[in-house]
Amino acid sequence: MYQLYIANKNYSSWSLRPWVLLRELGIGFKEQIVPFSEGSNWDAFRGFSPTGKVPALTDGDITVWDSLGIVEYLAERHDGVWPGNPQARAWARCAAAEMHSGFGVLRERCTMNCGIRVQLEEMPAALKQDIDRIDELWQQGLERFGGPFLAGARFTAVDAFFAPVAFRAQTYGLKLSTAAQEYATRLLNLASMQQWHADALAESWREPGHEAEAKAAGILLQDLRTTIAVKK
Amino acid sequence: MYQLYIANKNYSSWSLRPWVLLRELGIGFKEQIVPFSEGSNWDAFRGFSPTGKVPALTDGDITVWDSLGIVEYLAERHDGVWPGNPQARAWARCAAAEMHSGFGVLRERCTMNCGIRVQLEEMPAALKQDIDRIDELWQQGLERFGGPFLAGARFTAVDAFFAPVAFRAQTYGLKLSTAAQEYATRLLNLASMQQWHADALAESWREPGHEAEAKAAGILLQDLRTTIAVKK
Ligand SMILES: N[C@@H](CCC(=O)N[C@@H](CS)C(=O)NCC(=O)O)C(=O)O
Ligand SMILES: N[C@@H](CCC(=O)N[C@@H](CS)C(=O)NCC(=O)O)C(=O)O
Repeated sequence: MYQLYIANKNYSSWSLRPWVLLRELGIGFKEQIVPFSEGSNWDAFRGFSPTGKVPALTDGDITVWDSLGIVEYLAERHDGVWPGNPQARAWARCAAAEMHSGFGVLRERCTMNCGIRVQLEEMPAALKQDIDRIDELWQQGLERFGGPFLAGARFTAVDAFFAPVAFRAQTYGLKLSTAAQEYATRLLNLASMQQWHADALAESWREPGHEAEAKAAGILLQDLRTTIAVKK
Repeated sequence: MYQLYIANKNYSSWSLRPWVLLRELGIGFKEQIVPFSEGSNWDAFRGFSPTGKVPALTDGDITVWDSLGIVEYLAERHDGVWPGNPQARAWARCAAAEMHSGFGVLRERCTMNCGIRVQLEEMPAALKQDIDRIDELWQQGLERFGGPFLAGARFTAVDAFFAPVAFRAQTYGLKLSTAAQEYATRLLNLASMQQWHADALAESWREPGHEAEAKAAGILLQDLRTTIAVKK
């Protein structure tokens, strides 16, 4: 059985992608949570992941790392990872690859933090450009392939790749077009996303660096985390 | 016929990947060079690429963007893009995906600039960690799949993904293990890489931002560019 190594649910945007894909496709796996270490994670994470980063998937004695590497590994073994239609598949792969290496400003200024709500204090042009491009991409996919998911009727890997953006939009109240906002809400309402969110709220430890980043972005409106903070 | 939009050869590391892959696999394409604009490239590049970035590939009326999106598009249409062996293929895809979203410090501190030679002034720990990880990855691939390329006997997409690192190693004199250095030299000696390098040297215009970055990294030892600099 697959084992998926992740570090936590509140912050770990890269981990969310294969996790939500496996859940939405109904592929069985065992979740292995290895929390971030104090200081560097390198030593602890190198035990299961060659990059010292999460996520990593093991399949027997094969280790598959990097969220996009994992997705393509699954695509060779299970139906439905990418859309069946070749045009939709090409579009979906380009959009996922764009997400994989891009949107640095959004990633840096609006780090994933499922459990809090923040009112942004500024909207620098570079952040707005990232958000606008995602909005455009979502609208294009929904329109071109008929929705309700980005590349058509079913949830596929491209939706998994943008799932962390849905949490970011919720945490920071990002302004989106109606179609894009409806899509983000659709993602947030999936049973798998609801479970991820609930699990994130129940985590007791906090990663000081990520907490500071999120709070530097604006005014903290709410902390929905239900358990008392334990500094890791 | 495919058209591959790229901006230049001296600096454009992302463009090199699909270009060298197409050349090494002998897949025909027409090269379209659209130089960087003064200021933002957004308006000029949005005409052919939805991200406002290069590379972009067109196939009839389909536009495929992002270097990794292009590679997977080609993989569905041509043999040999990824290794045939499933284990080697999984490894190659993970390594390419790791390159696609990672190695930020190497990318920032040692920007690709084919035509110059620079002696690095500092080796910050984070840069060394990126270089060491690439070295480890190369050694692992060469050993596990038997070389002379990263995933076995043939040049595949994973080699294309690391081709810009070979130019960076040459420009900045990066210290690599013997096996990794031999592999970098092997890439640099490919006919396609030699042609890219020669074309880069013949470019007359200079991008001031990239020039400044490269020179900030250390002492300029040589500028091999054969034509007089024209600041665009
Ligand atoms: N490109 C990788 C990125 C993975 C990544 O950056 N993971 C973060 C957590 S979400 C991590 O493990 N960070 C730990 C560290 O850098 O020490 C992927 O897609 O899997
Ligand atoms: N993830 C993209 C990145 C493309 C990219 O950043 N390209 C650079 C040049 S190498 C670019 O077009 N920059 C122009 C700009 O940002 O204005 C890919 O793999 O194709």
